[in-house]
Amino acid sequence: MPTLILLRHGQSEWNLADRFTGWVDVDLTPQGEAEAKKGGQLIKAAGLSIDRCFTSVLTRAIRTSWLALWAAGQTFVPETKDWRLNERHYGGLTGLNKTQTAEKHGADQVKIWRRSYDVPPPPLAPGGEFDFSKDRRYAGADLPETESLKTTLDRVQPYWEGEIAPHLKAGETLLVAAHGNSLRAIVKLIFNVADDAIVGVEIPTGNPLVVELDANLKPTAARYLDADRAQPLPAI
Amino acid sequence: MPTLILLRHGQSEWNLADRFTGWVDVDLTPQGEAEAKKGGQLIKAAGLSIDRCFTSVLTRAIRTSWLALWAAGQTFVPETKDWRLNERHYGGLTGLNKTQTAEKHGADQVKIWRRSYDVPPPPLAPGGEFDFSKDRRYAGADLPETESLKTTLDRVQPYWEGEIAPHLKAGETLLVAAHGNSLRAIVKLIFNVADDAIVGVEIPTGNPLVVELDANLKPTAARYLDADRAQPLPAI
Repeated sequence: MPTLILLRHGQSEWNLADRFTGWVDVDLTPQGEAEAKKGGQLIKAAGLSIDRCFTSVLTRAIRTSWLALWAAGQTFVPETKDWRLNERHYGGLTGLNKTQTAEKHGADQVKIWRRSYDVPPPPLAPGGEFDFSKDRRYAGADLPETESLKTTLDRVQPYWEGEIAPHLKAGETLLVAAHGNSLRAIVKLIFNVADDAIVGVEIPTGNPLVVELDANLKPTAARYLDADRAQPLPAI
Repeated sequence: MPTLILLRHGQSEWNLADRFTGWVDVDLTPQGEAEAKKGGQLIKAAGLSIDRCFTSVLTRAIRTSWLALWAAGQTFVPETKDWRLNERHYGGLTGLNKTQTAEKHGADQVKIWRRSYDVPPPPLAPGGEFDFSKDRRYAGADLPETESLKTTLDRVQPYWEGEIAPHLKAGETLLVAAHGNSLRAIVKLIFNVADDAIVGVEIPTGNPLVVELDANLKPTAARYLDADRAQPLPAI
């Protein structure tokens, strides 16, 4: 039976610094590391045997996968890293302090950028501190300059359909260790969530979301492994 | 220019316990973790940009690769894990205390098993504590019951030629994080070391061995990144 385990990375250095992170490659804090290990321990306690792991090309998600696989006693699982599982690209907000940005543009505008489905922030200025186009991990990729949740989904979807879904259709159990918005995109795809509802779906960090699927990859059951820290799930 | 970085994992739990390890999946000790991070720091300080990483399916080598990539600031590098990079399979000696084994079989016999090129220990008895045939990471593999260094090389060689060498021929810089004997096998292949000489080649742990190669994968230069802990290298 196809089984999908979604694991959102925990606290990163810029969660503490209150800055828009997006594609900036900040590391986990010790708390974020502990969250990842806890996620792995929960996977182990649930008796889940992972066939394959997918993650982004950002250190905080990669290390979450590593720490979780280690804690689950399954370091040997094959792993693939791809930028299409990256966090949403925050465009021109990248690196800015959230409070200062709200003071400058107004809290309402910032809320629209953060919580609307299809309104992207202004594009990232090329050549600045956070110009990702020269980073070798993105060589050959057609990079966005900014993203809404909708355009994040637009690049997650082909990766999901082309690289992840075929392994599920083969009956595998997959771990996807990624970010709030790339995981929202996957949840929207598999649960068929409406545009205006998906922005309200909050996936807790470090708490594996286990989704059992039928042969057509329709969800048949879904649960958080740490029930005490569960959030509401979309209807099946 | 093709560049190969060989990194031997550091201290494991059974180094401390004085037991024959081989394919038993023991973890790194804190000292072994520190050795892996040091290796990654040396790679970073040398300005080496890794294109791809290969490791075994054993936790001590996998975690060495993870800790080294992390310390090198290159977590996003694609990684492949394969049993053909595993440590030499110690057959019936697996799990035994080295001192007790020498008392039982004689120190000379144990030295032959450990240091000859082509004399394997007795085979591992099936069904015991260390029967690897039911471990899912080896599903579908034609597993050995014991190995000499020669038969270790016999399974490393096709993996080297089929999966690793093509990336070098494409000019990539590769990290291979593995074990004393699978790395000896690679050193024998690229430096064309004689059978009786390879058993004397000792690769220090946690000290990246950087080999520069020509288009035919013949070594043109080789150096340990920590020169203070270097060991003699085969002639080029």
